[in-house]
Amino acid sequence: MQMQATVFFASKPISSATPRVLRVKSQYTPAISTRTDQSMASKWAQKTIVLPPHRRGCHLITPKIVKEIEQDLSGFKCGLAHFFIQHTSASLTINENYDSDVRDDTETFLNKIVPEGRSAPWKHTMEGPDDMPAHIKSSMFGCQLTVPITDGHLNIGTWQGIWLCEHRDHATARKVVVTLNGV
Amino acid sequence: MQMQATVFFASKPISSATPRVLRVKSQYTPAISTRTDQSMASKWAQKTIVLPPHRRGCHLITPKIVKEIEQDLSGFKCGLAHFFIQHTSASLTINENYDSDVRDDTETFLNKIVPEGRSAPWKHTMEGPDDMPAHIKSSMFGCQLTVPITDGHLNIGTWQGIWLCEHRDHATARKVVVTLNGV
Amino acid sequence: MQMQATVFFASKPISSATPRVLRVKSQYTPAISTRTDQSMASKWAQKTIVLPPHRRGCHLITPKIVKEIEQDLSGFKCGLAHFFIQHTSASLTINENYDSDVRDDTETFLNKIVPEGRSAPWKHTMEGPDDMPAHIKSSMFGCQLTVPITDGHLNIGTWQGIWLCEHRDHATARKVVVTLNGV
Repeated sequence: MQMQATVFFASKPISSATPRVLRVKSQYTPAISTRTDQSMASKWAQKTIVLPPHRRGCHLITPKIVKEIEQDLSGFKCGLAHFFIQHTSASLTINENYDSDVRDDTETFLNKIVPEGRSAPWKHTMEGPDDMPAHIKSSMFGCQLTVPITDGHLNIGTWQGIWLCEHRDHATARKVVVTLNGV
Repeated sequence: MQMQATVFFASKPISSATPRVLRVKSQYTPAISTRTDQSMASKWAQKTIVLPPHRRGCHLITPKIVKEIEQDLSGFKCGLAHFFIQHTSASLTINENYDSDVRDDTETFLNKIVPEGRSAPWKHTMEGPDDMPAHIKSSMFGCQLTVPITDGHLNIGTWQGIWLCEHRDHATARKVVVTLNGV
Repeated sequence: MQMQATVFFASKPISSATPRVLRVKSQYTPAISTRTDQSMASKWAQKTIVLPPHRRGCHLITPKIVKEIEQDLSGFKCGLAHFFIQHTSASLTINENYDSDVRDDTETFLNKIVPEGRSAPWKHTMEGPDDMPAHIKSSMFGCQLTVPITDGHLNIGTWQGIWLCEHRDHATARKVVVTLNGV
């Protein structure tokens, strides 16, 4: 009886996107078909990943993250993966996964935009000159990411990767809570 | 039998917010009543929308996005809509939906804050002078948004709209993975 | 019969994280065990919280937010909490919850980075000199947050808190749509 209510509220499939001319040179992403799963309960899985200390700067961590969750990811046909770093002086962002110069240049930008040391106007200095800038950078890039899951994998673009941005000079280990939800 | 377990874990309704004096001039948003749906399975729907190339700058895309998903949105009483752009030189953000000057000024800001051309300190230059700035802007605004769904619609504020921020001079089509989840 | 399909798609538990040396001085977060709930439907709850007007600057609002939702949070063993501010001149971010100087310094940074008044190049000035800067700051920090729920509580780090960043000089009340989802 209750299952009938479920069926009643089940969504109609999303109509396929109208085909369009798509010009994306040297990229390939498999076509994502429309999917609507009506008869199964959503699954949840949650774990905390501990990343060892990284030097100040931007770091590609997709392989580490995927290694920790791939077995579980494989059980989801459609869903969302949420990543949450439990710290206020590091951040998570998604950006280019290929040329490490992009990560170095991003660190250069952050240091240029957020004053540090004698020229900085900060009141909060008791934890070192790099601490207040780290807090600001943390809010600029954010502490959380949500990524679609499709057919058992993170459905990110060909050139996208997950970055850990470490904003402290002498970093500690960083904890990331991963929550998977889907069908 | 299993359904009883479901009922056992069903949440209590959120108690209504204590009424408060609310002064928001010239805005109207319908009151959102508390909702807790206990007897139905969450629904999932996912599709990839291809946005045709846009010129560099900030663009209001709410109408395009809603047109693609409104039929499916109408099947959700309560949920979340997730938007994920699969690129590292464009971004998604939510901002003012009315005066296009706001979008132009935001583009002005981004160009002012991120150096480009001869004065820029970037190492990553092989894809053109606008490429590294585009990567930085992409992380500043982010590649993903999550928006509440209420009564079959995106529950955004009266003046809010979804923006595609294109950071390249010669843009290609952009793919946005949309994931809907709710009851 | 349909329940069998559900069981078929239920995920395997996430394997426990490999133990690692963890050095995080003066912090304690309880170990998060792996959880996968297979037999129960996800629950949804949604409400709109009205925050009274705050002065321009960054404000710690975790206590206010938690007070509004704690009764419902307690019903979730595992899930996600989504916070969405329905405005384009204020923002939500997660940052340090202890020293109020961090909030003051962040406001100092935002005012330094986004020009305001005579020196500003904005076209959109009809709503006052603080309006266009407010829109830009809104997109820099963002209007939405997703936070993991674990064992009935927001699973944020020891030093993390939710901030309301008010970017207008004469602010009005601000509405935040909260959506809880989990098991």
